[in-house]
Amino acid sequence: MRACIIGASGFTGGELLRILLQHSGVEIVCATSRKFKGEYVYRIHPNLRGFTSLKFVEPSIDAALKADAVFLALPHGESVKWAPQLYEHGLMVVDLSADFRLKDPNAYVEWYKWPQPHPYPDLLKKAVYGLPELHRDELPGARLIASPGCTATASIMALAPLAKHGLLSHIPPVIDVKMGSSGAGAEGSVLDMHSHRTYVIRPYEPVHHRHAAEVEQELSRLAGREIKVAYTPHAVDVVRGILSTAHVLAEKDVGEPELWKAYRSTYEGSKFVRIVKDRLGLARYPNVKYVLGTNLVDVGFEVDQRLRRIVAFAAIDNLVRGAAGQAVQAFNVAAGFPEDEGLRTIPAHPL
Amino acid sequence: MRACIIGASGFTGGELLRILLQHSGVEIVCATSRKFKGEYVYRIHPNLRGFTSLKFVEPSIDAALKADAVFLALPHGESVKWAPQLYEHGLMVVDLSADFRLKDPNAYVEWYKWPQPHPYPDLLKKAVYGLPELHRDELPGARLIASPGCTATASIMALAPLAKHGLLSHIPPVIDVKMGSSGAGAEGSVLDMHSHRTYVIRPYEPVHHRHAAEVEQELSRLAGREIKVAYTPHAVDVVRGILSTAHVLAEKDVGEPELWKAYRSTYEGSKFVRIVKDRLGLARYPNVKYVLGTNLVDVGFEVDQRLRRIVAFAAIDNLVRGAAGQAVQAFNVAAGFPEDEGLRTIPAHPL
Amino acid sequence: MRACIIGASGFTGGELLRILLQHSGVEIVCATSRKFKGEYVYRIHPNLRGFTSLKFVEPSIDAALKADAVFLALPHGESVKWAPQLYEHGLMVVDLSADFRLKDPNAYVEWYKWPQPHPYPDLLKKAVYGLPELHRDELPGARLIASPGCTATASIMALAPLAKHGLLSHIPPVIDVKMGSSGAGAEGSVLDMHSHRTYVIRPYEPVHHRHAAEVEQELSRLAGREIKVAYTPHAVDVVRGILSTAHVLAEKDVGEPELWKAYRSTYEGSKFVRIVKDRLGLARYPNVKYVLGTNLVDVGFEVDQRLRRIVAFAAIDNLVRGAAGQAVQAFNVAAGFPEDEGLRTIPAHPL
Amino acid sequence: MRACIIGASGFTGGELLRILLQHSGVEIVCATSRKFKGEYVYRIHPNLRGFTSLKFVEPSIDAALKADAVFLALPHGESVKWAPQLYEHGLMVVDLSADFRLKDPNAYVEWYKWPQPHPYPDLLKKAVYGLPELHRDELPGARLIASPGCTATASIMALAPLAKHGLLSHIPPVIDVKMGSSGAGAEGSVLDMHSHRTYVIRPYEPVHHRHAAEVEQELSRLAGREIKVAYTPHAVDVVRGILSTAHVLAEKDVGEPELWKAYRSTYEGSKFVRIVKDRLGLARYPNVKYVLGTNLVDVGFEVDQRLRRIVAFAAIDNLVRGAAGQAVQAFNVAAGFPEDEGLRTIPAHPL
Repeated sequence: MRACIIGASGFTGGELLRILLQHSGVEIVCATSRKFKGEYVYRIHPNLRGFTSLKFVEPSIDAALKADAVFLALPHGESVKWAPQLYEHGLMVVDLSADFRLKDPNAYVEWYKWPQPHPYPDLLKKAVYGLPELHRDELPGARLIASPGCTATASIMALAPLAKHGLLSHIPPVIDVKMGSSGAGAEGSVLDMHSHRTYVIRPYEPVHHRHAAEVEQELSRLAGREIKVAYTPHAVDVVRGILSTAHVLAEKDVGEPELWKAYRSTYEGSKFVRIVKDRLGLARYPNVKYVLGTNLVDVGFEVDQRLRRIVAFAAIDNLVRGAAGQAVQAFNVAAGFPEDEGLRTIPAHPL
Repeated sequence: MRACIIGASGFTGGELLRILLQHSGVEIVCATSRKFKGEYVYRIHPNLRGFTSLKFVEPSIDAALKADAVFLALPHGESVKWAPQLYEHGLMVVDLSADFRLKDPNAYVEWYKWPQPHPYPDLLKKAVYGLPELHRDELPGARLIASPGCTATASIMALAPLAKHGLLSHIPPVIDVKMGSSGAGAEGSVLDMHSHRTYVIRPYEPVHHRHAAEVEQELSRLAGREIKVAYTPHAVDVVRGILSTAHVLAEKDVGEPELWKAYRSTYEGSKFVRIVKDRLGLARYPNVKYVLGTNLVDVGFEVDQRLRRIVAFAAIDNLVRGAAGQAVQAFNVAAGFPEDEGLRTIPAHPL
Repeated sequence: MRACIIGASGFTGGELLRILLQHSGVEIVCATSRKFKGEYVYRIHPNLRGFTSLKFVEPSIDAALKADAVFLALPHGESVKWAPQLYEHGLMVVDLSADFRLKDPNAYVEWYKWPQPHPYPDLLKKAVYGLPELHRDELPGARLIASPGCTATASIMALAPLAKHGLLSHIPPVIDVKMGSSGAGAEGSVLDMHSHRTYVIRPYEPVHHRHAAEVEQELSRLAGREIKVAYTPHAVDVVRGILSTAHVLAEKDVGEPELWKAYRSTYEGSKFVRIVKDRLGLARYPNVKYVLGTNLVDVGFEVDQRLRRIVAFAAIDNLVRGAAGQAVQAFNVAAGFPEDEGLRTIPAHPL
Repeated sequence: MRACIIGASGFTGGELLRILLQHSGVEIVCATSRKFKGEYVYRIHPNLRGFTSLKFVEPSIDAALKADAVFLALPHGESVKWAPQLYEHGLMVVDLSADFRLKDPNAYVEWYKWPQPHPYPDLLKKAVYGLPELHRDELPGARLIASPGCTATASIMALAPLAKHGLLSHIPPVIDVKMGSSGAGAEGSVLDMHSHRTYVIRPYEPVHHRHAAEVEQELSRLAGREIKVAYTPHAVDVVRGILSTAHVLAEKDVGEPELWKAYRSTYEGSKFVRIVKDRLGLARYPNVKYVLGTNLVDVGFEVDQRLRRIVAFAAIDNLVRGAAGQAVQAFNVAAGFPEDEGLRTIPAHPL
């Protein structure tokens, strides 16, 4: 299959290139960048030197039409200008922005400050939320995939088993997220500079963070009723990685066996999910350190019997599982490739 | 005043030395270390080279009796063997362990796994919890100071204004703490090695962490009723620093002016507390980056109107404000020195 | 082919496991650890959870004899006790220690403080120094491979083109090495703790470092005359990675075209070597950031015309190219596998 | 004394503010910033919140004339526009740029690419190179101080004892420098972003770095003959700190006692210099970790008898000893304050 990456000079674009270069069924036919058109891809992604002699080209529909599948690694609000045309031309579109994630057209006004509701409500309906562990059945043949947000992926996967098994209560779960700097992209603000961003532990948009909308949408769907979440991300001093810690004050006593069952049944057969809850060894709970560079999701939990609290965790690599890797995983299911094609990396340790 | 540090070779001991060397009213008469007795202090604390020619001596009551005040930088369960004797000899004792923090003698059985209740319940009553902003009136003349735990300090100070002003609800606040590696001390386990501890975001004792006991004791005192907290620390990749994020689901709508008033009135006149909540500039909320090496506590808050949630923050340097600095601050108030003597460092930026 | 890893609980052992699990022609039949025998491998190498259900076994010759090839990931001085027996039994032995690297039996007295010369001088002669780019012809069929030291690998590869092309002078090149913490192994000293090892730039054995012996041996061989090197490693604050900077004061003016030719001809056809010297883009010279997790060697150079100085660089990942990866690369050539089997990872960026 | 800081919004400006706020003899009367004029200083330097209510003002000669001393924290090429006027008005000028460091007016053409020689050769003669340990006699009463470059400071101080005692040879010393990210300033390029600058070990301007000119000037002065240096800086993953490692191939055997004597006599009585060369303890050589946040210079050395090599080290904090701290130190000597006024901080450990 021929693939094109629109917006290939950013971190997500770079990781898409890296993963697709290792994909046995994909040929990359274009990688676009307005800013770097004409330049060798490896000059902007120095890790790729020696692995590709591709050059960036000007982004255009015509360029994209050379491909069978297009990955949109564009800012929010940009993808919505590309996806409809590409879709109409019969291409498979994997959108890594938020533009097709929320099913309610009005949600874009509230969460993304769009001046009016989503302009393509019909296309929104057709879009599949590209979290394969929870939408695997909808993906085969899908032609518009809305790849989930990075912190949303971790948060949803930490809580999905509880939502699905009726273990959420009427108190909104508190979701406290810790994340690295690469989520800010390849060209950030002054606060993203090394001197400013090192040795940092601080809140980042501690209320009304936009990923809460996706999390609520997905957990509500699984729970069969409206779920609200108290969502607070933090910036910590790593480049990659997200740990989402969800605190659920349950309505009744919940035991470990019940939780094991919920997690196991939810993620049974999922190649990328590891349940990390151990009595022995170096890792008793999820830790971003052990998923770096891979599409893995490490989930885990603990019970606080004193307070009837369930603490649920998920650790991911934000650029792989929170972006490029998950997009390729969903693409694989949609296009009929093995789900882990191009994504079989074992994490290196220690990094 | 003459001071002795028992257990001076650890990180807290080293910071006590550093701070007291800059204290105009204190002469350090002994620094003990069983392991390093006879060795120059600067060989174990290389930062102190050139600032002191002190050598470590064997720990003993006799050594301590040369001093007017003794700082116990010992593991939990050790201080309780030293404090009573020193107290009886009329010395001022500043204990940096947990051994005199909890007022309920039985709490040591539950939280610290002691085989029986605290053996000195009377002394426990006399001990002042050494968080000066909340116990300033009890400190002058105090002869036994129980210096607070590091994550407890941040958590209590984030929530004290809410507790004091009746803004906590009947839902336990979720306190999600992020902390650096130096809290593990100068001689850690394999997981504290650089290779293992770098690039980490992971839970650390996510339920039933011992500092929850102090936090509940202090918040209950301020609130005038029993407060339970859902307490979960995390390890992140810095050496120093704690950010405590407390999520309070309020019982009624609370506005920013009311919160400003609560924080301002609680910390009015406190030299070490900065309320960090700004619309402009590089720091809108507390961040450990801006308190490193100092005794400052940066507190802040945000209101999540959608959920009636108050998110409260406090950032501290765990070795200074969470240990040695706070101990000297309480000692200053107890001994009649200016509260900030030895502690006037302005944080360096960027670190 | 069946492989056994002796000493599989350390970092090098863990990386051997990771790489061999991805190797299409190898079945891992044993992984030994005295300390962790009986324990699941993934409990000590949490990255491998889900990828193997292997357990550590007690190290023994009998265990090793189940394999066709044995990787010795043992401390210096230990391998020499294992290799001769395994060799005699007809196995292929890949030794990652220094015990068979130096051709001169007396060198072990000088550099490794052995009480007497190497006890197996004949075996020493048969051992192939496992740096495939420089010993590719000797490897096929080799049964004892002495895998190079980590800082030696980078230093030799930075300077090999100059040695080979007569561009070294009679002034010893100054080789100034910077390296991460993982070289100290999975169980280090107090200085290897996160608190002590973070925010460090310091010399590490600045004179008479043992890797100098290998570097001199290999450069002398290439130059056809005795080369001495002024060798000084430094510890810097990363987990993985080595950058070797070699300063050569040349005897005559040397131009860039001549150097390009030397580097190109030396490394022509080498799948793992990238010459990084660019006028444009984010990477003008080698940088450990862009080789992490891979077997790549990025080499580069610059000319200081004012002083007739050539500055040569090489960047590697010390655990892959400086240890486990290079060992598998040499094993591949020896055993007839494609040289990059198991080693085709593209580096992730940014890490 | 009244002081004004021109260019106060950068990192050096921020550190000048921090240090002068702790200086008992200085009142800060203005802090200028074109970009942030009218804004509270603490919004750009969040560490200073609570310590000053100063606002940035537009830079102007008039503003500066309110002061007795002016610190120019401006880019190279800018100070030269300010210093002459301020000097003529009788102010003391401390210039932290390179504009008055090099005594040879033509050197600015070679090293700083100025289109013509320095326009104020007379003023250049009057300028004192503000490295107090080596120019202490020239400073009292000086009205134009050229504060040394950051990597130059470390490199000169590592080698000054050798230069002064005739221990440099005719082979140019190789000076291999490792430095943190804060030297790039508060507003850097894309490569200074956290994602790009973390996990880096790479050369930075490996030949013809501009600080070499200062180093050669100062070492030549001390040696009494022309000294050339082979100068290569590297970027490593810390925010602050410089370690300079100088490799000297000596002309004769040199013993440790002779070196001890050279270092001791050169730095006798210098409050900020520590000779770090120890057989025991955690620090045997200089390490940036132990000087962070202070004006200290830790120097040390080792002898490589095999090659007649002397390896000399110096570790500094680039923003304090390499910039703001050293400027205040020189100012103190010039203005008659105690040399360490405002600079008595003991380094915190561990950071």
